[in-house]
Amino acid sequence: MKMHNFNSGPSILPATVLEQAAAAIINYNNTGLSLLEIGHRAKWFEEILHEAIGLIKELMELGTEYEVLFLHGGASTQFMQVPMNLLDTNDTAAYIDNGIWGTKAIKEAKLFGNVAVVSSTKDKNHSYIAKDFTVPANAKYLHFTTNNTVEGTEWHQLPATDIPLVADMSSDIFSRPFAYNQLGVIYAGAQKNMGAAGVNLLVIRKDMLGKISRPIPAIMDYQNHIEAGSLLNTPPVFAVYVAMLTLRWIKQEGSLAVMEQRAKERANLFYNTLDALPFYTPIVAKEDRSLMNATFAITDATLEKEFLDLCKENGMVGVKGHRSVGGLRVSMYNALPLSSVEAICDLMKAFAAKYA
Amino acid sequence: MKMHNFNSGPSILPATVLEQAAAAIINYNNTGLSLLEIGHRAKWFEEILHEAIGLIKELMELGTEYEVLFLHGGASTQFMQVPMNLLDTNDTAAYIDNGIWGTKAIKEAKLFGNVAVVSSTKDKNHSYIAKDFTVPANAKYLHFTTNNTVEGTEWHQLPATDIPLVADMSSDIFSRPFAYNQLGVIYAGAQKNMGAAGVNLLVIRKDMLGKISRPIPAIMDYQNHIEAGSLLNTPPVFAVYVAMLTLRWIKQEGSLAVMEQRAKERANLFYNTLDALPFYTPIVAKEDRSLMNATFAITDATLEKEFLDLCKENGMVGVKGHRSVGGLRVSMYNALPLSSVEAICDLMKAFAAKYA
Repeated sequence: MKMHNFNSGPSILPATVLEQAAAAIINYNNTGLSLLEIGHRAKWFEEILHEAIGLIKELMELGTEYEVLFLHGGASTQFMQVPMNLLDTNDTAAYIDNGIWGTKAIKEAKLFGNVAVVSSTKDKNHSYIAKDFTVPANAKYLHFTTNNTVEGTEWHQLPATDIPLVADMSSDIFSRPFAYNQLGVIYAGAQKNMGAAGVNLLVIRKDMLGKISRPIPAIMDYQNHIEAGSLLNTPPVFAVYVAMLTLRWIKQEGSLAVMEQRAKERANLFYNTLDALPFYTPIVAKEDRSLMNATFAITDATLEKEFLDLCKENGMVGVKGHRSVGGLRVSMYNALPLSSVEAICDLMKAFAAKYA
Repeated sequence: MKMHNFNSGPSILPATVLEQAAAAIINYNNTGLSLLEIGHRAKWFEEILHEAIGLIKELMELGTEYEVLFLHGGASTQFMQVPMNLLDTNDTAAYIDNGIWGTKAIKEAKLFGNVAVVSSTKDKNHSYIAKDFTVPANAKYLHFTTNNTVEGTEWHQLPATDIPLVADMSSDIFSRPFAYNQLGVIYAGAQKNMGAAGVNLLVIRKDMLGKISRPIPAIMDYQNHIEAGSLLNTPPVFAVYVAMLTLRWIKQEGSLAVMEQRAKERANLFYNTLDALPFYTPIVAKEDRSLMNATFAITDATLEKEFLDLCKENGMVGVKGHRSVGGLRVSMYNALPLSSVEAICDLMKAFAAKYA
């Protein structure tokens, strides 16, 4: 059965990336060894790391003032690692509370310094993006989540502020051209548009560093990782390799402009279908809809289980909403073909017609 | 060319594990999806995690007083995470300084509490294991490294103490039956005998927890991971799967007794060859020799490059010693066939004969 993968992450990856990753596990690049068996200080891995970092700088249009690191863990690790590295005990950082992940990031930051929550959309279950807020002039940075995977909202422009921005871009990184080089820090768990779970991308403008007095554990210190060129300890070799392959694929397909064009095609088709069918209810404010994660509900919620069973029968996985919000969700990452969106739109129309 | 993989880590894995891992990347268990594309909260992954934890408890003969976790990062992450979770600011922990990794662990622990270094072998470049020492009666735990990958020494019995033991077993875990259930904490990066880089095993006896007052970042808190059943955030799915496959292989081969028997066969052959050839010089004390990592030198060090070139020509990789100690090293993990040890022994004899 043809599968349609709407998983929110880990999620769909390009078939060519999967084929190359599988081949590398048997015999990497004709070395006679598996990618899993080679030393991370071998030339082979150096080349992989170098190519991945080069692709990131190219796709993001970053200058030499930026460092690119691959770190262990996921975005949840960065919730603590960012303030540990950037926020002194008596400093203040500004945070936008736009969803479940931002809320978690705020909780961690409070362990390291003062946190000013400059806006919260908790009043409406984070179903919109609050774009008006005031950031304290002394804030060291403003943290926001560019795309809220769980709630289905996305920032379509940068927050208006002069304070350095720290962006959790786990679920929309590399999905569009973006003002990457106007950000102070970008971080992202890899398991959506960038590859397999188990590695974190961290991009940092060097002037963000060296401003705190706290002693930092060696493995958590960005500066140490920079000096070691992302080889401070054994990196998650396989996950870095899959990220490199995925970045290579993005470039070969036509880079971020093409990713954005495809994301818009998918999202337009999906949201237009949704809006045309009162049988379903969109969850988030129209102007803040995510191109990556569309959240919605069946207006008569008692039909949800039947709908999910029908999805399953038709090879559509990942349509259940996040356990913290319920409802339904269709995730449409870079590698998702338009035909999968067409398939679920057809199913949604047929299901609505059945109950019309 | 037949390759002989003497890498110190990432290192050789069983061919059957690599084949299954590659197949799962294309189509996991006939789901029509790649293992890299499935949600970590799906039943599929739950089964993988459950089987892996079950195998660990079985192989280690652990009772219900132990928790088994898969965590992001490598052993270097545990250097800080152990004292962060177990050592209060005014507490004392005892550490044995038996090698480069122990030294690093000591440095990190000092950020969290008092550290008593109860013995150090730095005087002789960590070329032996100091087994006599006194642990302060108030020490919360005694930390040691069971196998020193870099220096080539190994503990062949437990340190004599009543203080709870914390063991970094990264490079000899699952290589032998061991008094696992007499340890308070066991941790290990996976990339030697347990699988691919990018995941950490943590085994903890529950009574070690709940004894400190420090607030711990959510993602670093063992208790949080226990409550979430190793699913606090997106785990490194692929690395956990490879670990499960490797553990399954260990059990199928005959469990830890068989692993130890093979390790002894390999090590006996290698060290006997080494001892019979004065052309080479062993580096560590005989009684403390590691069964996993044999370190040695060519007595005339000027011949080292030629020796390494010859190894390379014969498909033998990973023979260069760690950059911090130099010399040569042959790592002989679980998956290394005896025939690879025979091959390098033959090469060593021939090389020595050439210069006789």
